[in-house]
This record gives sequence, C-alpha cells and structure tokens, in this order.
Amino acid sequence: MITAAKELIKRVVKEVVIDEKFMEMALKEAKRAASDGEVPIGAVLIKGGDVIARDHNRCMQLNDPTAHAEILVIREGGRVLGNYRLPETTLYVTVEPCPMCVGAITQGRIGRLVYGAPEDKMGAVSSKFRLLNDPGLHHRLEVNGGILKRECSEIIQGFFRGRR
Amino acid sequence: MITAAKELIKRVVKEVVIDEKFMEMALKEAKRAASDGEVPIGAVLIKGGDVIARDHNRCMQLNDPTAHAEILVIREGGRVLGNYRLPETTLYVTVEPCPMCVGAITQGRIGRLVYGAPEDKMGAVSSKFRLLNDPGLHHRLEVNGGILKRECSEIIQGFFRGRR
Repeated sequence: MITAAKELIKRVVKEVVIDEKFMEMALKEAKRAASDGEVPIGAVLIKGGDVIARDHNRCMQLNDPTAHAEILVIREGGRVLGNYRLPETTLYVTVEPCPMCVGAITQGRIGRLVYGAPEDKMGAVSSKFRLLNDPGLHHRLEVNGGILKRECSEIIQGFFRGRR
Repeated sequence: MITAAKELIKRVVKEVVIDEKFMEMALKEAKRAASDGEVPIGAVLIKGGDVIARDHNRCMQLNDPTAHAEILVIREGGRVLGNYRLPETTLYVTVEPCPMCVGAITQGRIGRLVYGAPEDKMGAVSSKFRLLNDPGLHHRLEVNGGILKRECSEIIQGFFRGRR
C-alpha cells in the first residue's frame, strides 16, 4: 500500500517536472513575442516527449489575426506529422486560450492542454467561456491550468501595463 | 413618405441581390471542396464590393485542422490588405461558423458576417453557442443568416449522407 502510494507520488512529481520544463520553453517563446512588440504568449506542441512545434503570437508580423501561438503550433504540428488530426499531443500555452484557439484545439483533437495564467476577458476553458464542458463536443481532452501561473501572468500583465 | 419607403425597399432589395451574388460564389467554393473530398463549405471575403479572397475547407489537403474556409479567407485577407485587422469587410460563408471561426472573425474585426445554413452541432452564432452575444466582447458586427439557406444546406447534408 505504502509502495503504491510512493509510486503514485513519484509519477505525479515526474509529470509536474515535465510540465514545468515545457512551460519554461513556452515562456521563452512569450518573451520573444514581447521583444517583437507582439502580445507575449508562447506555445509548445509535444508528442511522445518530443517537441513538434514551438512558436509565439505573431499577428502583427504576419498580418494574420489568427496567428496566435496555439494556432501556429497546431498548424506546424499538422505539417510535421502529416495529418489534420493530432491525437496524443500535448499543447503547452502560457495563457488560457481564447474561443478561436479552444476551437482549434478541439478541431485538431489535441490530447492534452496545459496552460499557465487564467484569462478573465476571453479565456474559453474555465474563465469567461467553458467551451470544453459542452456535452455535445466530439472531443474530450485532459486539461491542466495554473502551471508556472505567476511567471506566465507577470509577462502578459507587464506588457499591457507598458502599453497604457 | 411613400418616396422614403420606396427608397428603403430599393436599398434592401439591392442588398439581398448583392448578398445572394456573393453567396453563390461561396457555394461554388463549397462544390470545389466536395469534389476534393473535403467538408463542402465555402467562403468569400469582400471589401468595398471587391472580392479580397475566396476559398473552401482544405483541412485534409493542407494537413491543417484550422484550414476551414473562413480561416483561409481571413488569413488571405490579412495578407492582401497588409493588416491583421480587417474592418469594413464582409465575410460570406455557406454554413454557420464554428467556435474557432467565430473567434477568428472577432479577432480579425470583420465588419459583417453573412451565412447560409444554420449548423446545429457546432454553430457558434445562433445555434449551439452564441459567442457574439457576449457583453464582454470587444467587437460588434452585423450578422445575416439564412441567405440561400436551402442550397447551402443541401450540399453539406448530401456530403454527410454520402459518407454514411
């Protein structure tokens, strides 16, 4: 019994360490966005422990309103994996995704979503909208919010403070 | 008074004629998608009476879960107009957009949305979700649904019947 509990704790700790490692990578992407004057949000797409795609918000650079970090890594993921469905992938993103990005996550059948800071105004997982809770949704996925929350919040709050 | 009423009717009739003309164009795009084995939905983006972009669903062809007709014309619109905001454009699409596409429409600040058939399972304007009604939304746009509804419904229903 104690051995089983120890194993479980070991597994959970290992998952947290992995999640924080990839969220650090997403945070680096967010910092790149900030230095380009873009909204500082970064994302990383993982499959089987490998990084499939990493990118950051580039709406202004690309003249593309859809060029959020999540959309860019999902599109790159489809290209790399040669499929328009991306099961068994994990998407890390520094801020809770908006309705467009949550829609793309379900369209792409992403297996797991890990995000950092909640987003009150447009967050579509647990804050403003709860699109993934809809019983009619084709697709179910595992969601973990709040990983490196403080760091992820600080970079985006700092950006908007600077623009006021 | 009668003259004013006549003018108003003339204006409304003219708008309907224009809307049907561009929806016919979107339907042609939907037919192209069908002949490629893609979900038959087409879209056209207009500004000042000019066609800025026209395309159809190409998720399988491009290995891209985000390659819905609406997303493709919005991305092309940003490229053509050299901006990540697309105010004063009208987006025509044969089927009510899903949450991803409604999100992209608001991100892109599209001025007007005209759609054909309602979509019960994922429609995010008036059927399944009502994302545009949210009081917190930054962006307001004019919406017209049901233009060439019968033709737009037939092509998508025929496609899914054929796949069963």
